Amino acid sequence: MSDTTADLRARAAELDAADKLATLRERFTLPDGVVYLDGNSLGALPANVAGTTADVVTRQWGELLIRSWDESGWWTAPERIGDKIAPIVGAAPGQLVVGDSTSVNLFKALVGAARLAAPGRTRLLVDSATFPTDGYIARSAARMAGLTVVPVDPSDAAAAMDDDTAVVLLNHVDYRSGRLHDLPGLTAAARAAGAVVVWDLCHSAGALPVGLDAHAVDLAVGCTYKYLNGGPGAPAYLYIAARHQAAFDSPLPGWNGHADPFAMTPEYEAAEDVRRGRVGTPDILSMLALEAALDAWDGVAVEDVRAKSLALTDFFLACVAAYVPQGRVESVTPVEHDHRGSQVSLRTDGAREVMRELVSRGVIGDFRAPDVLRFGFTPIYVGFADAERAARTLGHVFG
Amino acid sequence: MSDTTADLRARAAELDAADKLATLRERFTLPDGVVYLDGNSLGALPANVAGTTADVVTRQWGELLIRSWDESGWWTAPERIGDKIAPIVGAAPGQLVVGDSTSVNLFKALVGAARLAAPGRTRLLVDSATFPTDGYIARSAARMAGLTVVPVDPSDAAAAMDDDTAVVLLNHVDYRSGRLHDLPGLTAAARAAGAVVVWDLCHSAGALPVGLDAHAVDLAVGCTYKYLNGGPGAPAYLYIAARHQAAFDSPLPGWNGHADPFAMTPEYEAAEDVRRGRVGTPDILSMLALEAALDAWDGVAVEDVRAKSLALTDFFLACVAAYVPQGRVESVTPVEHDHRGSQVSLRTDGAREVMRELVSRGVIGDFRAPDVLRFGFTPIYVGFADAERAARTLGHVFG
Repeated sequence: MSDTTADLRARAAELDAADKLATLRERFTLPDGVVYLDGNSLGALPANVAGTTADVVTRQWGELLIRSWDESGWWTAPERIGDKIAPIVGAAPGQLVVGDSTSVNLFKALVGAARLAAPGRTRLLVDSATFPTDGYIARSAARMAGLTVVPVDPSDAAAAMDDDTAVVLLNHVDYRSGRLHDLPGLTAAARAAGAVVVWDLCHSAGALPVGLDAHAVDLAVGCTYKYLNGGPGAPAYLYIAARHQAAFDSPLPGWNGHADPFAMTPEYEAAEDVRRGRVGTPDILSMLALEAALDAWDGVAVEDVRAKSLALTDFFLACVAAYVPQGRVESVTPVEHDHRGSQVSLRTDGAREVMRELVSRGVIGDFRAPDVLRFGFTPIYVGFADAERAARTLGHVFG
Repeated sequence: MSDTTADLRARAAELDAADKLATLRERFTLPDGVVYLDGNSLGALPANVAGTTADVVTRQWGELLIRSWDESGWWTAPERIGDKIAPIVGAAPGQLVVGDSTSVNLFKALVGAARLAAPGRTRLLVDSATFPTDGYIARSAARMAGLTVVPVDPSDAAAAMDDDTAVVLLNHVDYRSGRLHDLPGLTAAARAAGAVVVWDLCHSAGALPVGLDAHAVDLAVGCTYKYLNGGPGAPAYLYIAARHQAAFDSPLPGWNGHADPFAMTPEYEAAEDVRRGRVGTPDILSMLALEAALDAWDGVAVEDVRAKSLALTDFFLACVAAYVPQGRVESVTPVEHDHRGSQVSLRTDGAREVMRELVSRGVIGDFRAPDVLRFGFTPIYVGFADAERAARTLGHVFG
C-alpha cells in the first residue's frame, strides 16, 4: 500500500467514524463488495420494501381484492405519499401529489403554468442544457398552449425573463454536469418578471434542501427513483403551490382528479386541492413500494444530508486528484459548494469503456454521452470509504 | 334445500364438469369461501405474480441495480408486454405499447387521432354513456386540438358520423350496463365517413374477442387490471395500427419515445414504430407484475373465453330469475349475446346497501351510482357454481 493510499484510507475511516448519518446504510440492502455511485439514476433498495411489496401483492390484492381501495388506503395513496415527500423538498402538506411519470407531470405543470400566466405573454424559457425529456415535453406543451420555446442557459435565464415571458422551466441540478442552479434567485427573478416558474427537482430532491415553500416556487415536478430510492420507474410527483391550486387547470383532467370521482358525472369538476393534479388510477404496486422506501427518511434532516453530500464529493475529488494520473480526467462539476449538486461528473476520453471497466471492478457509476463519467453520492447509504475506493479503482483503470 | 336450489346446483355442477377452462382457476389465488365477481374492476391475483415481484425487488433491483435496465429487460418491457397482450385483442405484434394510465393513453390517442384526421374537420364524437374519464379527457384533447366534443349514444353514432367528423371515441363495452357495442360496424362506419376511430377496450379485452386488426381499428386504449388481471393500477396500453405509426404525432413526446433515447439530443425524433407511444420511464414493479400475470393466458383462446362468458352470464340470469323475488331487480344488461359483454348489471332500489350485504355474505360484486349492482364474470377463474351461489345469496338478501 502506498503512502497516499494509506493516508486516504485512514482519512476515510476517520470521516466514516464521525459521520452521524452512517447508520442509515442499515436501512438499505446493498450487494456485498459493490460501491454504488449510481443512486442519481436508480436509488438502492430500502430494506423494508420487499416485505411491503409481498404484503401488497399477497394480502392486499390477493385476499382483500377490491376492498383494498378503501381498507388498504390505495385510493388516497397519491396525496398521502405526496405529504411524505413534502418535508424533503421543503413543502407544507397538501401541495404534492404522486403518480404518473416525470414527463407526464411536466406536461401538466407546463400547460397548467401557461394557463396561470398573464394573458398575451408568448415565451416559454427552457434550460438549454436540460435533460432531454423536459425540452421535448416543453415544445409539445408550447405548441398546444400557443407559446414559443426559447432555450436559455440557466446562468443567463434571469436576464432573459421579460414581460413577454409566460413560463420558465429550469432544472435544479443539471443531470450531466451536476451543476446546482440558483433556485431562490431564479424563482425571485421569475416572480419579478411576472412569469410562472416550473422547477424539475429530479436531481436535487433527497440530496439537498430545495425549499419550495420558502422560496415561493410556483410549480415543480420530480422523480422518486433517484435520491428518494422509490424503485425503478417509481411514480413521480407534482407540486402545486397552495396559492395556485384553485386556478390550476390541468390538461389531463382524469377521473381521479375529480371533486367526486365516484359520482361518475359527465361534467368534470376539479377537486378543490392538489388532488386535481391526479389523472388515472394509481399504479399501486409501484406506489406503495415508494411509500415504504420513504421510511428510510424517518428522522433524517435534509440539511445533514447536504452537509455529508458536500463532504463526500469534496473527499472524492481529493481522492481523484491523488489517484488519477494528471490530465486523464477533468471535473465538469463545479468546485464551489453553492453550485454543486450531489454528483461528480468527470470528462475523459473513452468514457464508455472506462465506466465498463469500473463496473467490472465493482464500482458502479454511469456514462452519459459523449464523454462523461457520472458518480452520484447518496449520503444516506454512501460512505467515505466508498468514495476512496471508487477513486482508487478509477486510478487503477488509468494505471 | 328447495327443489329449485337442488336443480340449479346440479346444473352448475354439470356445467363446471364440462367446462374445458375450469382448470385455469388453478392459475389464480382466490380467498377461500369467496365468490369473486368484481374482476371487471380489479382482476384476481395470478399465482405466479408474488414470486416474480419478489425477484424484481430483491434480485433485479436490490442486487443488479442499474444493470437491470439491460440485463433484466426493463427497458424493453413496454413493447414486449404489448406484444404479449396483442393476441388477446387480435393484434399482430409491434402495435401495442404498455405504460401510463388509461386516461393518459386516451389523451395520446385522441390528440394523435386529431392530428391524423383530415384537416378542417371539427367534431370529436364521444360515447355519451362513457366511463367519465373518457369524456373528461376528450374535452381536454378537443380543447387543445381545436375540436368540438359531440356526445352521441353509440347506437346513433354511425348516423352521426359525417364529413365534419374528425375523431370518434367509443367504448367497446359500457362500464355500467355491460352493453357490448358493435366494434366492426362502427369502425367501418367511421372509416366510410373518413374519421379516425379510437376504441376504449377496458371492459372487453380479456373477456371477448376484439379483433383490432381484423376490423381495421385505427387506435385503441385499455387497462390491464380488469380481465387481464395485471394488478391494482397496472399500466394501460395504447394500440397504434401499423399503418398509422409513421404519422402518429404524440402530444406526450417523452424521452422513452425517442428514436435514440440515450443519445440525449435536444431535438425530438420519434421512434419509427409503436415505441413512439412511450413517454417517461416505465414503472417497472407494476409493469413486470403485469407481465407475469399475463402468463395465465398461456394456451387460452379468447373465443373459448367468450363462449364460457356467455354461458356464465346466461346461467347467472337464469339463477337470478329463479331465486330473486319477482320485481326486485331488473337487468340492464342486454339479453342478446351480440350486445352483451362479460358482466351482468342489475338495477335495484337500495343498491348500495344490497351490495354491502352481499359482500358481507362472501359474494363480491360492486355498486355503481345511482342504483346498479354489477357482477363481472371473468371466465378464466369464475365457475358456474360461483354464479349459482351469487344468485342464491342475492335471493336471500331480498328474502
